[in-house]
Amino acid sequence: MAGEKQKVAIIGSGNWGSAIAKIAGINTARHTDLFEKEVSMYVYEEKIDGQNLTDIINKQHQNKKYLPEVRLPENVVAMPSAQEAAKGATLLIFVLPHQFILNTCKALKGQLSPNAQAISMIKGVDVNDSKIKIFADVIQDALQIPCAALSGANIANEVARDKFSETTVGYRPGGREAAEVWFKLFNTPNFRVGLIEDVAGVSLCGALKNIVAIGAGFCDGLGWGDNSKAAIMRIGILEMKNFAQEFFDDVKPQTFTETSAGIADLITTCRNRKCAEAFVKTGKPFHELEAELLNGQKLQGTETAREVYQFLKSRKRVDAYPLFHTIYRIAYEGLEPAKLTADL
Amino acid sequence: MAGEKQKVAIIGSGNWGSAIAKIAGINTARHTDLFEKEVSMYVYEEKIDGQNLTDIINKQHQNKKYLPEVRLPENVVAMPSAQEAAKGATLLIFVLPHQFILNTCKALKGQLSPNAQAISMIKGVDVNDSKIKIFADVIQDALQIPCAALSGANIANEVARDKFSETTVGYRPGGREAAEVWFKLFNTPNFRVGLIEDVAGVSLCGALKNIVAIGAGFCDGLGWGDNSKAAIMRIGILEMKNFAQEFFDDVKPQTFTETSAGIADLITTCRNRKCAEAFVKTGKPFHELEAELLNGQKLQGTETAREVYQFLKSRKRVDAYPLFHTIYRIAYEGLEPAKLTADL
Repeated sequence: MAGEKQKVAIIGSGNWGSAIAKIAGINTARHTDLFEKEVSMYVYEEKIDGQNLTDIINKQHQNKKYLPEVRLPENVVAMPSAQEAAKGATLLIFVLPHQFILNTCKALKGQLSPNAQAISMIKGVDVNDSKIKIFADVIQDALQIPCAALSGANIANEVARDKFSETTVGYRPGGREAAEVWFKLFNTPNFRVGLIEDVAGVSLCGALKNIVAIGAGFCDGLGWGDNSKAAIMRIGILEMKNFAQEFFDDVKPQTFTETSAGIADLITTCRNRKCAEAFVKTGKPFHELEAELLNGQKLQGTETAREVYQFLKSRKRVDAYPLFHTIYRIAYEGLEPAKLTADL
Repeated sequence: MAGEKQKVAIIGSGNWGSAIAKIAGINTARHTDLFEKEVSMYVYEEKIDGQNLTDIINKQHQNKKYLPEVRLPENVVAMPSAQEAAKGATLLIFVLPHQFILNTCKALKGQLSPNAQAISMIKGVDVNDSKIKIFADVIQDALQIPCAALSGANIANEVARDKFSETTVGYRPGGREAAEVWFKLFNTPNFRVGLIEDVAGVSLCGALKNIVAIGAGFCDGLGWGDNSKAAIMRIGILEMKNFAQEFFDDVKPQTFTETSAGIADLITTCRNRKCAEAFVKTGKPFHELEAELLNGQKLQGTETAREVYQFLKSRKRVDAYPLFHTIYRIAYEGLEPAKLTADL
């Protein structure tokens, strides 16, 4: 790759995709020795006040729908087709809702630059009975290109407003050099990138934290106070770490206990769990609360709790993860929320 | 000690001392095979509405001054003399403000049961230029009895109200058997005791977290959001761990990253840092804010930040702890709060 510049494509343009586009656009313009300045961004086309969202982004340099009031660099170019956005790209950033991954990969397969590589910013895991897969592996297998992962304590609106944040890039064994490229693409004085050789750990942090945050929300709903919530988080990070070490190879414990993807993101995610809190206080089921409080958007934690429960059940390992199990039982089986700590 | 029952004395009766007295009183009554039922508690005598505080505690079974509205077990007996309270005791719980430790130990020296042992619940460190000592060692050296340490995410009012909490007992090498006794004295369904062979780590967690929490408060004051605060906490727990490993023997990293004394207590302590937040928002110095917001009580974090800075300076190691140093500089040297992350 020496001498050839990297060309960046962002596949996805929601709240987080737009925030990361801002950072990538700033850095490709800053490191023109390394990167082509233009960053293409795949935007699912929709009409906003009668205008195409891609046109709004390309003319007004704002994603009015998903990240309003934040100016995107002019070198970020929105395109309504993933194939067009990915054309010639050597660095592909996947930041789509996970249900769109497989179809998007199918559309891109065979169209990519021969030395392309990818990074996944997708939360969640892909569970099929007794099989579990991180999305970095889903992408890597579907496209046959190396795929790293990025996750961290990264509320998109704060990153987009240049508030100090850290993040973590997990790279593959032997992938340190590629990781340094991702570092240069994302690191800024107020968005500090850490590197760790642990794609699975970084990916699982981003998925499993959402289960623990449901438990933290139950604590808030029960009015149990700060000691309880901190205890749930501590027990949660250890179940996350144990789960990753049991079912994935080469996971590093410190990804969970020492990185931004691990403990820091858990702290951030556990701050505001209004749905889980409301679940306890109102007794309403989650699908009703999602409609009322999240505009119908699915809560990631309950979905992941269910998927992880089904996986553990088929592996006969439910009992080894009492916090995950209890959160599942409260969310789906009518267990009294006050029993949250009874089996811990 | 086989066959002989343990006799418990609590040296101190503030908010946390009274909460732990409640737990100890319940457990000595529950395990009468192991413990003498009566728990003596040294109470610094003062008058409340014309009555002795010891009389109020012994008649109304409430510490009206420091833990009002919580009923203490009747087997907790308040005494106005530390020597009287410690008489015959085999388990001494030190839960005094640190400035009273040395004089109290002097008063007790030579008066104790030959097989007495102690546990320290004291926050802070004892710094003298280039020397640093945890209070468990201060007590152990002064009384010539083994001294363990207890610390955790333990807001006293929540523990006293039986909200679910965890805590950590750090024990000495070879002290596992004694640690099991402390476990039985403190563990309840809603106050879960973890054991780790690391007195220094547990003690330092309780002291150093207060520095990090000042940094978290600065974040709040700056309006930087949740990503920033989580990043400060992550960097903080690693500086705490590195500091402990550099200056103390046999410290375990996981005390910091995995126990209630470590990450969980840091999370709890960083929730509410009104003084550090107000410092940024008002520009007033800490001594004024302590007078206004804490009834004149000293803020532990700023004091510990200063002591640790002086220690690191005399060891020529300030630069290895950029977060501790920056917090010190903001609190004491007029550094702009917005520079909080500049040197990280």
